[in-house]
Amino acid sequence: MNTPRPAILPEPTLRRLPWYLAYVETLREAQEEYVSSTRISKDLDLDSSCIAKDLSFLSLKGKTRIGYEVEALEQALTEFLGFKVSHKAYLFGAGSLGAALMQDSGLSNYGLDIVAAFDTDPRKEGTVYGGIKVSHPSALSRTMRENPATIAILAVPAPKAQEVADTAIRAGVRAIWNFTPCRVRVPEGVVMANTSIYAHLALIFNRLAEIPAPEEKGGAQ
Amino acid sequence: MNTPRPAILPEPTLRRLPWYLAYVETLREAQEEYVSSTRISKDLDLDSSCIAKDLSFLSLKGKTRIGYEVEALEQALTEFLGFKVSHKAYLFGAGSLGAALMQDSGLSNYGLDIVAAFDTDPRKEGTVYGGIKVSHPSALSRTMRENPATIAILAVPAPKAQEVADTAIRAGVRAIWNFTPCRVRVPEGVVMANTSIYAHLALIFNRLAEIPAPEEKGGAQ
Repeated sequence: MNTPRPAILPEPTLRRLPWYLAYVETLREAQEEYVSSTRISKDLDLDSSCIAKDLSFLSLKGKTRIGYEVEALEQALTEFLGFKVSHKAYLFGAGSLGAALMQDSGLSNYGLDIVAAFDTDPRKEGTVYGGIKVSHPSALSRTMRENPATIAILAVPAPKAQEVADTAIRAGVRAIWNFTPCRVRVPEGVVMANTSIYAHLALIFNRLAEIPAPEEKGGAQ
Repeated sequence: MNTPRPAILPEPTLRRLPWYLAYVETLREAQEEYVSSTRISKDLDLDSSCIAKDLSFLSLKGKTRIGYEVEALEQALTEFLGFKVSHKAYLFGAGSLGAALMQDSGLSNYGLDIVAAFDTDPRKEGTVYGGIKVSHPSALSRTMRENPATIAILAVPAPKAQEVADTAIRAGVRAIWNFTPCRVRVPEGVVMANTSIYAHLALIFNRLAEIPAPEEKGGAQ
């Protein structure tokens, strides 16, 4: 089955599309048949012109007064976001975060299949997490011939991030999904996505420190 | 020990600070003593005026011509980012992602301590991941009295996200770290951070589809 190639689209839209998807999944589970953009706007607290623009990238039209068919919208979003096609990935770094990602079956539901994992630590070689065996990086080029992948997931220690990214790109991956706190540089034509867990933690800690804690209620007892 | 309360600062700066931290950690491991902002600028591919502005939030001054002392800069960044203080969190949803987060020891190195986990699935009650026992949400208010936390980590199925966030906020948490693909709304004064794993996947898939794959090399053989 051929999925139509998605159009390149603005990052803010790409960030919102999974919200719509999660939202219509909830509606479908509640057996709702239609949803109007007015209702989406109210439930998600988004401007309706923003919704109209975001959904205009899908090849789906709402009906006047009724809105969008819930199931059709869910399907259009899933396909458009690429979650229905399997994208193969290698994971680098089978530490606690790497092992965690290998065991997160949610990723494959969203189109990401980790097909191999690499770690330089000889004690980790041969270990299996979530059905995936950890190999030494020297097996990378053979793996690329036998079971090629387009995406490298970086979960290595920070000082190794750039080097591992370079190696993976030389081996043929075309996208880097960076979970390290490092800034990783890639040549033009290679896709780069940062999931900055620690940056989000820093954001939470900083904002928490700014908001005064509510006062203790009640007296001593 | 009292850490000075960090100033509220712009999100782009907050996103870059962990880059500097990872970078100076690498320098310290390579036993470098000083780093100039010119070198940071070159190595991280960032404008030096941007670096000067970002680092001006720290109570640390670089020396003319020599730059910053690597160890002092690392310590200032770690403290400023709140990674040295323990912040207690509850995890909601012990599915594959939730269990993965409980097993990621990296989080506690960065100041986040998951002290309790909740799941409505009776089969998960009593299960232990990474030393943390999963309880039924009915234990939430008791847990809040005995071992209070300020942060709720959402790793529940999408349709439950808002409801669980509301419950956690009523119980007293002051920040929501949302790993679900949902848009979650919180009252004013509650900190909200989204780690949109699926949005990042969508971004990678979309950008990959835009970049033509390199042509196969060599002929048939």
